[in-house]
Amino acid sequence: MNQQQFSSSHIPGLDRFWAVIPAGGVGTRLWPLSRAAAPKFLHDLTGSGQTLIRATYDRLEPIAGEHVVIVTGEAHRDAVCAQLSDVAEENFLFEPEPKDSAAAIGLAAAVLYERDPEAIMGSFAADQVIGPDEDFQEAVLEAIATAATNKIVTIGIKPTYPSTGFGYIQQGEKLSVEAAPSAYEVAKFVEKPEAAVAKRYIAAGDHFWNAGMFVAPVELLLKHLRANEPELFAGVTQIAQAIEAGDADKVMAEVWPTLPKTAIDYAVAEPAAEAGDVAVIPGDFVWDDVGDFAAIARLHPAANEDGVTVIGETPRVYADEADGVVVTDTSRVIALIGVEDIVVVDTPDALLVTTTKHAQSVKQAVESIKEHGDDDVL
Amino acid sequence: MNQQQFSSSHIPGLDRFWAVIPAGGVGTRLWPLSRAAAPKFLHDLTGSGQTLIRATYDRLEPIAGEHVVIVTGEAHRDAVCAQLSDVAEENFLFEPEPKDSAAAIGLAAAVLYERDPEAIMGSFAADQVIGPDEDFQEAVLEAIATAATNKIVTIGIKPTYPSTGFGYIQQGEKLSVEAAPSAYEVAKFVEKPEAAVAKRYIAAGDHFWNAGMFVAPVELLLKHLRANEPELFAGVTQIAQAIEAGDADKVMAEVWPTLPKTAIDYAVAEPAAEAGDVAVIPGDFVWDDVGDFAAIARLHPAANEDGVTVIGETPRVYADEADGVVVTDTSRVIALIGVEDIVVVDTPDALLVTTTKHAQSVKQAVESIKEHGDDDVL
Repeated sequence: MNQQQFSSSHIPGLDRFWAVIPAGGVGTRLWPLSRAAAPKFLHDLTGSGQTLIRATYDRLEPIAGEHVVIVTGEAHRDAVCAQLSDVAEENFLFEPEPKDSAAAIGLAAAVLYERDPEAIMGSFAADQVIGPDEDFQEAVLEAIATAATNKIVTIGIKPTYPSTGFGYIQQGEKLSVEAAPSAYEVAKFVEKPEAAVAKRYIAAGDHFWNAGMFVAPVELLLKHLRANEPELFAGVTQIAQAIEAGDADKVMAEVWPTLPKTAIDYAVAEPAAEAGDVAVIPGDFVWDDVGDFAAIARLHPAANEDGVTVIGETPRVYADEADGVVVTDTSRVIALIGVEDIVVVDTPDALLVTTTKHAQSVKQAVESIKEHGDDDVL
Repeated sequence: MNQQQFSSSHIPGLDRFWAVIPAGGVGTRLWPLSRAAAPKFLHDLTGSGQTLIRATYDRLEPIAGEHVVIVTGEAHRDAVCAQLSDVAEENFLFEPEPKDSAAAIGLAAAVLYERDPEAIMGSFAADQVIGPDEDFQEAVLEAIATAATNKIVTIGIKPTYPSTGFGYIQQGEKLSVEAAPSAYEVAKFVEKPEAAVAKRYIAAGDHFWNAGMFVAPVELLLKHLRANEPELFAGVTQIAQAIEAGDADKVMAEVWPTLPKTAIDYAVAEPAAEAGDVAVIPGDFVWDDVGDFAAIARLHPAANEDGVTVIGETPRVYADEADGVVVTDTSRVIALIGVEDIVVVDTPDALLVTTTKHAQSVKQAVESIKEHGDDDVL
């Protein structure tokens, strides 16, 4: 074991902890910046100088050391390996085609189970913005300690507004876990609510956003996967055994395409919660899934003097009576005059002009572009 | 003489008529489409498939035949000659540097005077949109007939709204000119008015927009130029004599840079009006100086079904809850979502996003870009 900053003596389970980073999802609402060939996690959406996947890795490495597994698409092999050159070859898992989160996370769990049946895995999406790192890491350590008591432990996000775009986690009874003072049982997971319901959740104070972050013993996770998605369980187990035997190519090519497409929430988290196997650690850190360009504007409160947030390597932006956000990966001069709350995304082959208010509609525009056959830019 | 469509027997002066097309002016308010290297008159701003200068020539050729003189900058020699390959070499006059309208038009008048002291010239800017051609041509023929009575004859534009962006021409007494039933004396020229004044002009019905179009005997025009701008008169006369002698290069290089910069309105039209030498033919045709992108939106009432007017050779534009105008000379996909009254001008090295309401402010943005040293895109 090679934990770098945190002493394993204080946190039960830390010495058998593996961080898993599923890097899938195009981020359609961030088109034309994010697209099939250059998905969201390969972009620096915060102006930090780092891609989201690299920032995710850097946040987990102090806890997990060399125990980091990346699950991503074959299509992104080169770009992801270039971002994470310090990850060992055997810790990359490449999906021949996207199969949703249950298959990706199930495969990682099955591989880790082959390596160590006692392993505890934590799954952290590659395309979220989190900070400060220390507060996040504290929550992960509490989640590991709680997972060591044989729980699937979600890290819930304290809501900052009554979002109707996220699912919620309702906390139940407080748990007594040494080294995890803020652990609670999960009463239930709830789907994206109506606005009035979301407001009640916020007022009650016992609901957290479901960010899809969880820490769990792989054996417990696989037990629920087998119960709910037996075909999926059998498939990822067969592939994992082939991978660990060093002869995965044929099995992967044969089995992966047959796996059912479903979300880890349905395949594991929700039935496990009903069985009383799920806990929650309320995360007390800044979190954003950067779901659309409104999020990018939100993440950059310090706009430049003209009121326009500019993200890009060589921006040449002029603003006059304008505010909003410009994301550019060209060196073109961009002039904004008299446009408020504007979103301009400038790429070599596609341009988006919208407002932060309409940021969620980008997905429909992408559908329309696909229907009309201009999918060279998707 | 080579008049193609109009019989010279009916129109006094037509057999000694020359059309002059001054093609200068960048059209800064149409940046980044229009710019120093590709000024307004070299663009197709109406979606007709023709540049404005070519459309201007085609409108005048049925009246003037081969008697068309082009005055433009040395910098645009190749582009203009490519547009007007049917104009004889000796009918191009190239300015070494811009010197405003009095020098450009004065030079054309002086050259024509050398060729025929009885010549009548008509000056028509290269970057205006006019239609239908027949109605314009009728006005020009009346202007020629009136000019043949030794008048400087402006063609006034019947105002369609109380513009504060144009100067006005106030009509005086009706004139009795055979073949020019709508000719009036000009009472006076008035500068760009305040809004309230402009409204009074419209209500009175005796004021026309000054579009800078006029027809005049070159001798009369040069008489007023000599009286008001003797240095300019002497300079263009010296250059014209050298041009007609076939040895202009040295004289042009020496004299042109010394000429005063002034507008033909001050140098000729206004003092001539005071002297009672100016008439007006009210033009009963559609006219637009395409001064900004709001004009482009105005000139294209038939927007596509999404409410967005698209101008470009290979447009790939998607609009959702959007209206306005897109001008593109790239093949990029452009998606507009939830933006109203928007103006997007997409060129390979510069992008403008504004609204039709702010279209006049483009000029200031260009100033700002110049100040910051990004003048590679100007």
